[in-house]
Amino acid sequence: MGVVVPMEERAREQTGIDRLVALVSPGMARVNQMILSRTGSDVAMIPEVANHLISSGGKRLRPMLTLATAQLCGYEGDGDVKLAASVEFMHTATLLHDDVVDESDMRRGKLAARMLWGNEASVLVGDFLLGQAFKMMVEVGSLDALAVLADAAAVIAEGEVWQLSAAKNLATTEQGYLAVVEAKTAALFAAACEVGPILAARPAHERAACRSYGTSLGIAFQLIDDALDYGGSSASLGKNVGDDFREGKITLPVVLSLARGDEAERAFWHRTLEKGEVRDEDLAEAQRIMRRHGAIEDTIARARTYGDAACEALSAFPDSPMKTALLDAVAFCIARAY
Amino acid sequence: MGVVVPMEERAREQTGIDRLVALVSPGMARVNQMILSRTGSDVAMIPEVANHLISSGGKRLRPMLTLATAQLCGYEGDGDVKLAASVEFMHTATLLHDDVVDESDMRRGKLAARMLWGNEASVLVGDFLLGQAFKMMVEVGSLDALAVLADAAAVIAEGEVWQLSAAKNLATTEQGYLAVVEAKTAALFAAACEVGPILAARPAHERAACRSYGTSLGIAFQLIDDALDYGGSSASLGKNVGDDFREGKITLPVVLSLARGDEAERAFWHRTLEKGEVRDEDLAEAQRIMRRHGAIEDTIARARTYGDAACEALSAFPDSPMKTALLDAVAFCIARAY
Repeated sequence: MGVVVPMEERAREQTGIDRLVALVSPGMARVNQMILSRTGSDVAMIPEVANHLISSGGKRLRPMLTLATAQLCGYEGDGDVKLAASVEFMHTATLLHDDVVDESDMRRGKLAARMLWGNEASVLVGDFLLGQAFKMMVEVGSLDALAVLADAAAVIAEGEVWQLSAAKNLATTEQGYLAVVEAKTAALFAAACEVGPILAARPAHERAACRSYGTSLGIAFQLIDDALDYGGSSASLGKNVGDDFREGKITLPVVLSLARGDEAERAFWHRTLEKGEVRDEDLAEAQRIMRRHGAIEDTIARARTYGDAACEALSAFPDSPMKTALLDAVAFCIARAY
Repeated sequence: MGVVVPMEERAREQTGIDRLVALVSPGMARVNQMILSRTGSDVAMIPEVANHLISSGGKRLRPMLTLATAQLCGYEGDGDVKLAASVEFMHTATLLHDDVVDESDMRRGKLAARMLWGNEASVLVGDFLLGQAFKMMVEVGSLDALAVLADAAAVIAEGEVWQLSAAKNLATTEQGYLAVVEAKTAALFAAACEVGPILAARPAHERAACRSYGTSLGIAFQLIDDALDYGGSSASLGKNVGDDFREGKITLPVVLSLARGDEAERAFWHRTLEKGEVRDEDLAEAQRIMRRHGAIEDTIARARTYGDAACEALSAFPDSPMKTALLDAVAFCIARAY
């Protein structure tokens, strides 16, 4: 991007999630084993499709958050492993269904499953993973955790339908867009973080703190993704820059540019995003317009504000290596934009 | 059809489900209210899509079975209403996703939701209904019922993927086909019936009896559907005769015809079902071939065998008006074929 935004000292020193990865590493080995075994089926297409996506190098940030918050709260059982695997299955099912909805060709730098096995397989294998996710949650036996995750499943789908209804609608406001992000992305982060203290039978204010951390981190994460779609590099993101633009998605950089632009620019966004008439040079023009209005920097600045809120939420917990690791994770998510 | 198959006296006397409908009527009023309230959303597209399908005149046989088995087992709480609504939501979600998978134009005699709102809406509203279904199950608070329904969700999707893998494959055996039917159709009937005795805290053998009733009834129901697709009337079925044929589905009438046919007939099925080259006169030819081999009658005969097994399963219960109503329901499902 070439944009220089000052960062906090802490973020500049530790932008990795190495500390988090190390602390949850034993649990994640069991989560990965669980994921492999629960995608097994006599129906060969199921492990083929599921593992195409699952093994394609996602960071598994969401299941790590479940293990991390459980550990932060002193949980010593093994229910966190199955809930973490459930969270990853819910996420994978969402990705499979999103690809069908968005008619995406690529996902994480590989051909989308729907391009290899068809839309049908993406829909049905997604459904299978959701079913397996709920089976694992039931096995853990916490009705409170089940309630949080079932609620997230409904909210995520509701957010996706909302986004679909608002697609290609230039009247989308910043507030409206953030509500969609809170539903479609942050709800699963929030649930992933809340089941940790639930398993550990911690009091309500710690549940609320972990949930708040997850919500804010999820919003920050999505806003950075939105910024990267107009400025990251294809290699580092694993998907093509400009996907959102070509799919006519109204993300925050667009919302901010629209609010600050003139009639000529509005005509440009109308033609490209609403009418879908995209020419080769249009992505570069979109980036120029965003640069003119500081829309990418301000998207990142808003992400940083949510990141700060995520860190603030953890003040409910005493200092610990895991708390530091969770603070690092926030910095890592923000630092992807640079 | 014009096919005359002798039926048992009981079936001939009472082929309606009027008795069942009457006995569960107070509960179903509450189920319908629950369904309406749980499809509510600020996102207007959700109630639009959901109610398009939900209000389009399905018989709601599955939720009736949940209420009926709960009542059969003496349950007096109100958890059956939410579980029955969950079962209907799971079924509706499956229909929405099936339409996308099958590229269906029609559903229950109306335009399929995907034709009106697009594949995207069908996928996502299906996901929303699944999420709402699990939320209601959690509210009921029975982990055993949750386990049964979550397992059904995974098995249904697995069966659908299996069917997708086997689509257009003339090598499908009767046994293989019945295994798919047991997964994709009978699993939800079985779960709908098993949660009744679970809520009533009845012993394992009554759970097994209700489950067995549901499984057998579900298979019988699907086989009759398969027969109707080659012989029912569009008006009475609410979908076009020949849908399965045009979609290249290998159902039991085809499996039986294939096993009994010659090379010329095999070439016909290969061209129409495997290669999808269907001409206007082909459906009539398919029906002639099936008539020649008695494939429809034998499909119905097998359905009757499963129907008998369903009735037999209820011998675990003493006579009661509800038991009679559940026996009637079996006869009703079979009688649709005539």
